[in-house]
Amino acid sequence: MAVYTEVSDDALRQFLADFAIGELVAFRGIAEGVENSNYSLRTTSGDFILTLYEKRVDPAELPWFLGLMEHLAKRGISCPLPVHGRDGAALRLLCGRHAAITTFLPGVWPRRVQQMHCGPLGTALAALHRAGADYAPVRLNALGPSGWAPLLARSLADAAAVDALQPGLAAELQSALDGILAAWPADLPRGHIHADLFPDNVFFLDGKLSGLIDFYFAATDLLAYDLAVCLNAWCFEPDLAFNVTKARALLRAYGATRPLTEAERAALPVLCQGAAIRFALTRLFDWINTPPGALVTRKDPLEYVRRLRFHLSAPDAHAYGL
Amino acid sequence: MAVYTEVSDDALRQFLADFAIGELVAFRGIAEGVENSNYSLRTTSGDFILTLYEKRVDPAELPWFLGLMEHLAKRGISCPLPVHGRDGAALRLLCGRHAAITTFLPGVWPRRVQQMHCGPLGTALAALHRAGADYAPVRLNALGPSGWAPLLARSLADAAAVDALQPGLAAELQSALDGILAAWPADLPRGHIHADLFPDNVFFLDGKLSGLIDFYFAATDLLAYDLAVCLNAWCFEPDLAFNVTKARALLRAYGATRPLTEAERAALPVLCQGAAIRFALTRLFDWINTPPGALVTRKDPLEYVRRLRFHLSAPDAHAYGL
Repeated sequence: MAVYTEVSDDALRQFLADFAIGELVAFRGIAEGVENSNYSLRTTSGDFILTLYEKRVDPAELPWFLGLMEHLAKRGISCPLPVHGRDGAALRLLCGRHAAITTFLPGVWPRRVQQMHCGPLGTALAALHRAGADYAPVRLNALGPSGWAPLLARSLADAAAVDALQPGLAAELQSALDGILAAWPADLPRGHIHADLFPDNVFFLDGKLSGLIDFYFAATDLLAYDLAVCLNAWCFEPDLAFNVTKARALLRAYGATRPLTEAERAALPVLCQGAAIRFALTRLFDWINTPPGALVTRKDPLEYVRRLRFHLSAPDAHAYGL
Repeated sequence: MAVYTEVSDDALRQFLADFAIGELVAFRGIAEGVENSNYSLRTTSGDFILTLYEKRVDPAELPWFLGLMEHLAKRGISCPLPVHGRDGAALRLLCGRHAAITTFLPGVWPRRVQQMHCGPLGTALAALHRAGADYAPVRLNALGPSGWAPLLARSLADAAAVDALQPGLAAELQSALDGILAAWPADLPRGHIHADLFPDNVFFLDGKLSGLIDFYFAATDLLAYDLAVCLNAWCFEPDLAFNVTKARALLRAYGATRPLTEAERAALPVLCQGAAIRFALTRLFDWINTPPGALVTRKDPLEYVRRLRFHLSAPDAHAYGL
């Protein structure tokens, strides 16, 4: 469910009057997305997405996100382009929320990832990293390695609830995290990363990648960590078996546009461990803290614990097809 | 939330191959609607809605609903037109569900009902009733008067839960229902009614009514009962005060296209009582029987109990502006 804020007719009309994008034709809530309210908006001049930013997004960070999308779109990355109002501002207020209109991207996100998706994904991710290189503002990654220990500590405040998911889970996560942080490679190439490039954020059309969306976890961090997120999100089968053929396609295509350094290759296992524990930890926290009546689907943290175990057993980059 | 069934890429491609509506361009879940899974579907030939019918709809009744929509659309009613596959069939299977593609209707449903909406609503409802007159198949109204006593009885099986909502509610509903059923006018003009024409099922564009959607509660019943549903759904303010100006606009516009009989006018109070108790009863049942963790927003039954009290106090059609 992704409509938390209902937009009244008057408010919408008034809001659109501040843009030069024609007259309203249709307006429907979009089911996808869990952080913000998203509407599909059609006007006489085309299709757009209206996003109202809900409370999990810090308004102070919105200019950074919108600026990054605009920067990337203008460099040929197929991502939502913020539409500016007549006064020049893209970030506005609507129904007591920060809100923005962006362009609509055609395409369909893959419900079942196939090998043919992974090459185009790698190419697009590398192109995103290259196009972002001259976007100067920095956003620290709140959900990067420095955030993981505090996140785990908050869940371990109720260690019994953690172990209720699986006996010994609290100790397993603590031990894995200690190892990951001790081995974390601080000195790899940095830049702006998407940090949440799951299949539902990537559109395909006629077998080609047609768009990347949802940049609201983007941050400035290790570029190869973004690849590690994708290896976790795209290269495990539904039974959580790792598909090395998909991984190889992803990494080779990425490397053809932005070659990995030797240090990045060597760090792949620990980067993947970090990406797996990052999603395990946020899911764990949500699992423990989502009240039973909440209108949110809790995602199973154990799926990422199982991915983590795979990466802990990976001796080197060969495990990922390199 | 209105996507219960995820459609895989392969399944969608195969499904669309059975239609002559061009190539897939975009495919997004729609947030609106609570009974079925709805997707906004764009192809190279235009925009459509793909609906997967979930378990609350009896598949045996789908041909009646789709037939009614097709009948109405062909007589100029702006409602979804089922799209036939290459083999002639509109009702098909997809991901283990019955599914259909219908045309997309432009417009926006009014989040805040204004008087200007009520006249066009009345005109459209009367036009719908007239256009449906020569659709021969009949569907009994499972949520019509014969269904209300069993529905109340199922909730009263846990009378304490009913009274927990409001002390004395169980007795109040039983007494009101007895009175309504005793006074129910069996002999008014019948036809096919929408039966659920709430604001979120009616689109407007540039101040004009542009479409009626969601015919999955439609049935063959008293035509004026459909008006009573609309009086309940459109003519109460957020504080539940009855707005007689809106009611008058609705009834006059309806009457200009299909004049009400004297008996229909006289029956308005009891028809409105019936419509109010129908929504009070289904909401009450859902309220009591929705498990705490369910991904469904429970709607407050008491809002319709308060409407019911207004209608019980209405002496005659003058209370509705006639």
